[in-house]
Amino acid sequence: MNFRSYTVEFIGTFFLVFTIGCVLLLGGDGVINAIAIGFALMIMVYAGGFISGGHYNPAVSLAAVIRKALPAYEFIPYVISQLLGATLAVMIVNHFSGHVANFEGCAFNMWPMITGEFLFTFALCYVVLMSATNRETKGNSYFGLAIGATVTVGIFAVGSVLCYGAFNPAVAMALGMMNIACWQSVFITIAANLIAGAAAALLYNYVAPEKIEINL
Amino acid sequence: MNFRSYTVEFIGTFFLVFTIGCVLLLGGDGVINAIAIGFALMIMVYAGGFISGGHYNPAVSLAAVIRKALPAYEFIPYVISQLLGATLAVMIVNHFSGHVANFEGCAFNMWPMITGEFLFTFALCYVVLMSATNRETKGNSYFGLAIGATVTVGIFAVGSVLCYGAFNPAVAMALGMMNIACWQSVFITIAANLIAGAAAALLYNYVAPEKIEINL
Amino acid sequence: MNFRSYTVEFIGTFFLVFTIGCVLLLGGDGVINAIAIGFALMIMVYAGGFISGGHYNPAVSLAAVIRKALPAYEFIPYVISQLLGATLAVMIVNHFSGHVANFEGCAFNMWPMITGEFLFTFALCYVVLMSATNRETKGNSYFGLAIGATVTVGIFAVGSVLCYGAFNPAVAMALGMMNIACWQSVFITIAANLIAGAAAALLYNYVAPEKIEINL
Amino acid sequence: MNFRSYTVEFIGTFFLVFTIGCVLLLGGDGVINAIAIGFALMIMVYAGGFISGGHYNPAVSLAAVIRKALPAYEFIPYVISQLLGATLAVMIVNHFSGHVANFEGCAFNMWPMITGEFLFTFALCYVVLMSATNRETKGNSYFGLAIGATVTVGIFAVGSVLCYGAFNPAVAMALGMMNIACWQSVFITIAANLIAGAAAALLYNYVAPEKIEINL
Repeated sequence: MNFRSYTVEFIGTFFLVFTIGCVLLLGGDGVINAIAIGFALMIMVYAGGFISGGHYNPAVSLAAVIRKALPAYEFIPYVISQLLGATLAVMIVNHFSGHVANFEGCAFNMWPMITGEFLFTFALCYVVLMSATNRETKGNSYFGLAIGATVTVGIFAVGSVLCYGAFNPAVAMALGMMNIACWQSVFITIAANLIAGAAAALLYNYVAPEKIEINL
Repeated sequence: MNFRSYTVEFIGTFFLVFTIGCVLLLGGDGVINAIAIGFALMIMVYAGGFISGGHYNPAVSLAAVIRKALPAYEFIPYVISQLLGATLAVMIVNHFSGHVANFEGCAFNMWPMITGEFLFTFALCYVVLMSATNRETKGNSYFGLAIGATVTVGIFAVGSVLCYGAFNPAVAMALGMMNIACWQSVFITIAANLIAGAAAALLYNYVAPEKIEINL
Repeated sequence: MNFRSYTVEFIGTFFLVFTIGCVLLLGGDGVINAIAIGFALMIMVYAGGFISGGHYNPAVSLAAVIRKALPAYEFIPYVISQLLGATLAVMIVNHFSGHVANFEGCAFNMWPMITGEFLFTFALCYVVLMSATNRETKGNSYFGLAIGATVTVGIFAVGSVLCYGAFNPAVAMALGMMNIACWQSVFITIAANLIAGAAAALLYNYVAPEKIEINL
Repeated sequence: MNFRSYTVEFIGTFFLVFTIGCVLLLGGDGVINAIAIGFALMIMVYAGGFISGGHYNPAVSLAAVIRKALPAYEFIPYVISQLLGATLAVMIVNHFSGHVANFEGCAFNMWPMITGEFLFTFALCYVVLMSATNRETKGNSYFGLAIGATVTVGIFAVGSVLCYGAFNPAVAMALGMMNIACWQSVFITIAANLIAGAAAALLYNYVAPEKIEINL
């Protein structure tokens, strides 16, 4: 049990989800959501990457397990840490926003949502594995920028048009808990995210194979 | 035949063109096109640079061939991979946008278009060669930021004012396939892009000569 | 007495506070406050980090002392240098803005303010310690980007909604001197900032312990 | 005579000034001037820094001479290369904009202008010397980001409010040639820029002395 890593995952997911909640529910004028959220992920990846890998995202943890950058027995504790961080963030945001359900029923377009969530979660996990787990690029200083910017690009490209722009099951769950998304769409988003993470890991194993190495 | 590199070029060009298509045809409020597109290139350069060089652009591949950073026999497979990636992206964007021709005839100003496309494709290939293929700057972490930001600057400076701001034959072709540009202007753009790539490579060979070294 | 470090802290805090004052009191159209201020911190961290550590913030200096990255006897001179830099910046901004008190009485919501200031000052000090003082990440090139972007994220997320978005006692004092904040709220902000810095240092000592090493 | 460096300075200044001219005189909606211009400097610093030092600015070249990072006999050829690059850029911009004088007489506020130009040219030269010429930070990957972002911060903070936001005699001259600034104010700007460069070099020699080393 590696409680230092779990603490880092908890903190990073907390600040990612707290930032998302603030800009969506409390945000003032002039906030550029895609940059705020992408930078929030970037700073936490840079801060905690050398301890836990800086996932903050169950789909990324799944991809890391398949690519053998994270031991399989760490998957569950990582995800629990991430979900707890997300939950605390939602509690604080909900406290200040006094948010109640802002939708009636649950209308969404399934295929655009699956497409958008799949494609950019795939891109995100691909960027994580290529920039932060390969021996040839070890020691680089760009991994956090690349990872955070992938979320920025995804939100600009498909967020709020095709899908929620979560690209992260912990974020999807948080959107449900903040009543921004209905639970049906949350579950579909989570499924699309996890499948995308697995697909990205398989692709990685094809394009960038190497000796297995468990560390970031 | 280096199928790993072709796969990486396919994926990178796919996400670059998919992002362009989304922000131009589906984009919601508050999207900063120049940043979304520049970041899309940046993340794919950082992710795939160590496998394929991270071109995602036939003009860059041409410049790399002339500067001898890419073997000449790889030029055609690289370009085919890029065009296939762009085509798949366009198919998905067109599916969701239900886009049909939004122009009558084909009006454009030829010299501004050639000037804008030439200058920033030249800048892009110059930045790629200087930051990502020279022995003195080998191992740096800024190449992806510099390359992506060049497209951001180009779109801010000349995009939609002097020209389309493609700076990339694969993007130009995609703009034609999405009915954003008429084919006459697409062909002129492609020619300007390729000439600029060749010019940048010749300049590079003057300002930064060195022993030839085939790897990024 | 390390006057070179004090000079660097003076200059960095001056430009940070001067930028804040300009964008808040003189700023023209189209200014993105959160990016201007985050970048101002980033450039000064990159410029001066290798001399003084690049704190420009008494809460960061406190965290550095607790984490033993700064000798305790340097705390007071560092803070004095920072407050002098902030004061000079305020004098110039007030000169050009002709600013007078723009509030009557002193109305603010205490718990949102404490929450917002605590959380992002905590994030800021956590990012500083993790990215700029740990042996495992020594020599990285991302520390300034991560540190500056944390302030950008904080301002987007909670600035002007929950709190002032100072995350820095020197900035809080400057907001008081520019009549943007009343002194009661300034003192609460400063307390929240310092407690957050101490909390981040304790967390750091748990998640990333190592042999003590006094240098950045 | 180091014609490779002069070519690099010519190209970099050309693209910097061309970007400025485009966003000011041709720019469409949604252009964020401060980011476009800061990024333009950044990409050229990253591309050409290892050849010429990547100055593109007579005030920076002056600071580099005083700090002994550039031999004194290179100052004049560097400045000529920079002014020629700026002139070509202006010719192209003026051709497309059909720009004529848009001011009557020559009204400006001298002390705000001097203050704004002095302070951020000082910051720019300080950042250049600290991040790109010191042995302790040699080989870092952040110098271009820090240098470009300094111009972004300066334009957000004082550009168009206190002064033109040139921070560069070559840019100031170009603003005169594009009829954006009257020549009286151009000369004052140039003087403030050069004095700031000299002041930054003197400060650098105090805070970060080291054995002299002529290379970037």
